[in-house]
Amino acid sequence: MRPIDALVNSLSEARVVTDPDVIDSYARDRTFVEPGKPLGVVLATSRDDVVTTMKWAGEHRVPVVPRGGGTGLAGASIGTDGSIILSLHKMTAIKELSPADGIAVVEPGVITADLDKAARKHGLMYAPDPSSYEISTIGGNLATNAGGLRCVKYGVTRDSALGLEVVLADGRILDTGRRTMKGVTGYDLTGLFVGSEGTLGVITSATVRLRPAPTAPPATFAAEFGSLRDAGAAVSAIMAAGCQPSLMELLDRATLAAIDEWRNIGLESTTQAMLIGQSDASDGQAMVEKMERICAENGASFVAVSSSPEETEELIGLRRLAYGAKERQGACLVEDVCVPRSLLPDMITAIEAAAVRHGVRIATVAHAGDGNVHPVFIFDHGAVEPPPEVWAAADEVFKHALKLGGTLTGEHGVGLLKRRWLALEAGPVASEVQRSIKAVFDPLGILNPGKAI
Amino acid sequence: MRPIDALVNSLSEARVVTDPDVIDSYARDRTFVEPGKPLGVVLATSRDDVVTTMKWAGEHRVPVVPRGGGTGLAGASIGTDGSIILSLHKMTAIKELSPADGIAVVEPGVITADLDKAARKHGLMYAPDPSSYEISTIGGNLATNAGGLRCVKYGVTRDSALGLEVVLADGRILDTGRRTMKGVTGYDLTGLFVGSEGTLGVITSATVRLRPAPTAPPATFAAEFGSLRDAGAAVSAIMAAGCQPSLMELLDRATLAAIDEWRNIGLESTTQAMLIGQSDASDGQAMVEKMERICAENGASFVAVSSSPEETEELIGLRRLAYGAKERQGACLVEDVCVPRSLLPDMITAIEAAAVRHGVRIATVAHAGDGNVHPVFIFDHGAVEPPPEVWAAADEVFKHALKLGGTLTGEHGVGLLKRRWLALEAGPVASEVQRSIKAVFDPLGILNPGKAI
Repeated sequence: MRPIDALVNSLSEARVVTDPDVIDSYARDRTFVEPGKPLGVVLATSRDDVVTTMKWAGEHRVPVVPRGGGTGLAGASIGTDGSIILSLHKMTAIKELSPADGIAVVEPGVITADLDKAARKHGLMYAPDPSSYEISTIGGNLATNAGGLRCVKYGVTRDSALGLEVVLADGRILDTGRRTMKGVTGYDLTGLFVGSEGTLGVITSATVRLRPAPTAPPATFAAEFGSLRDAGAAVSAIMAAGCQPSLMELLDRATLAAIDEWRNIGLESTTQAMLIGQSDASDGQAMVEKMERICAENGASFVAVSSSPEETEELIGLRRLAYGAKERQGACLVEDVCVPRSLLPDMITAIEAAAVRHGVRIATVAHAGDGNVHPVFIFDHGAVEPPPEVWAAADEVFKHALKLGGTLTGEHGVGLLKRRWLALEAGPVASEVQRSIKAVFDPLGILNPGKAI
Repeated sequence: MRPIDALVNSLSEARVVTDPDVIDSYARDRTFVEPGKPLGVVLATSRDDVVTTMKWAGEHRVPVVPRGGGTGLAGASIGTDGSIILSLHKMTAIKELSPADGIAVVEPGVITADLDKAARKHGLMYAPDPSSYEISTIGGNLATNAGGLRCVKYGVTRDSALGLEVVLADGRILDTGRRTMKGVTGYDLTGLFVGSEGTLGVITSATVRLRPAPTAPPATFAAEFGSLRDAGAAVSAIMAAGCQPSLMELLDRATLAAIDEWRNIGLESTTQAMLIGQSDASDGQAMVEKMERICAENGASFVAVSSSPEETEELIGLRRLAYGAKERQGACLVEDVCVPRSLLPDMITAIEAAAVRHGVRIATVAHAGDGNVHPVFIFDHGAVEPPPEVWAAADEVFKHALKLGGTLTGEHGVGLLKRRWLALEAGPVASEVQRSIKAVFDPLGILNPGKAI
């Protein structure tokens, strides 16, 4: 009997996919990385399925690739040769939503936006909002410690994770954290699993924090700048002035041009950057007016404050068009460095220099309030993977981010794509410590091997 | 040559204390726990001193007890027999304070309030404010993941920790985290060290997040209730209404009576609980008026909103008197359970029942917005340690907190005092994982053995 047959016997055929075409569709994420040939896909519907799968995998030494919505941008859930893909996307129960305690207990396959919607019915929200939040899962968000647009005010996924139920590599069940707002018994295992990209265990339930939803629609502004440096200075001044925006996005000239080419937004020839900011505070209108003034003081050539939800939608719509506009122009490698926020203009200038030097098209958006920069490398639609000049430019961008005291990845994760640069950031001691921690949780090396660390 | 002489030779006599009386003063914290007989105290002035001490300790198998301001309430920095105490309190440099990036880089001996003061000069603040913040150190706060009054709005110490420099048990230096707001390379080692009570490594530098300081003085209210249940319901309603208080403290009847006995505050005979709340938002006055209304709707017998900084000082002053008032009445065991915030009245009711059943005096204050409850067990001034009936009542309180889905310690830590209850909360799998992680960092078991886990 093949190992996979033993798994089918334990789980029932309905939960184990062995059709190669279907397997292939589960073996991909939102990167261009070509998957290997996994043995099959487990469509887990319960914690017991996960336990059974892990015990089987340990017995047969089969690598397990946990997977949520498959929206990853770093390759963490790419299916590898001879692995089993463990998909959690059918575990979609919101098991509890307690407005009184401000928490929810959810299965990992819950779509991020669905949890937020459920919370809104009680005047609460689930704050983390990666761009993929309408198709990504809470489990995937936890596994990658996903960021998003709102995290400039509300923090990243880790800041909303209170406790986890995790199936360990050997099938044991570990409960971490708690359902209270505070707690300091033992080491912070919750934080350790968040962002570990499925290499330490499989999250089967999460207790997450909900926050009060803003009571009024957000106020929004947009500002255009003749130079990136001015836009960066405006961001620094806005953050230093304590405006606490709930969204603060920067679009560079290349991004604006791509949008203009698609939707004709009347882009001025002198505009080099646009800032779009929001405040969802109860005094939000006053706050965006303050941010608008700061932009004007920092050389903005044009500033607009929305006075209606429709105008807000129009301004935010511009940001939403950014990625689609780039995809029209070619295949995209979406990158994700993060620098101290005062160095945002330096970082974007370096990205533009790398683009020129290597003859590569790069269009950049940034979660500017956090210093989190997404240079999108655009190359030929037909290419199977990014050509060497793209990687050469990316290499320069990564190294410059590290030189500025930044990091290789602000919110997308390491996955497969960033591993070759990892040692530059982590250094030998941290790398060794990471490997030792991995060995504690996964001595056989069956949990998503070759990813993250 | 005795081992301690080798250390004196390496570090110079000025940095190693061997006088038994001085050692004893460094071997205590704010608990009643009687220390052992340590070999000496290292007064580290640099990372190199810490490295030298750890290498010496490894060579001679001497336990090391790291220590900050000695303000701990759980015994984590109590000096044990044959140990060396490693005091970081002389490493007081604020190495960097960058308003543009919203961060500071500090040595572990910096007094918490000093960092906050330095940040205020730039319109920023360091948010974590444990009650001891005027005498506690950042290093100690990190080691215990200290909470405080403001954490109901700004989170605990972990939420302000971006990166650490740590000397490992074998003297190697580990850099964790980053100076950016976001970052997801590798496992979250920063979070792992925060709250580890000196059992995984010695923090020698920390990069912490600063936040915009409120621009106006906070608005404050106080409300008196005829029952704990009403006060608890008011807290739940305030949090659910999205008021986002920057402080939300509850004082029970026993606490108010102790204050009244000391300072004659005119306590009404019907008052069972008082809530004191603040908002530091730009619309703070409107917010506290909203909170005041919610209190009135939930049965408050008396509500006051401060209209001046003097009145605010008077209301907050009441809260500050709480601990002193109890210390007048006897020796104090300050406890620290945390429950889901909707269960706050249940928890306090159970505390009162335990007090009656065991004939023990307990006066309780709570960081009510977080469900974090501090029952203070008051016993004879002359007693060397809490008498059996105090421990019996505490045992009941701890178990009830766990029964409510809470935790043994919200912000003080496990130290020595909570170890015997730890297994009830952590369970066998988590306990084993914690021990395995400890073994990764400290295979010889020389870092603060017998504490925390």
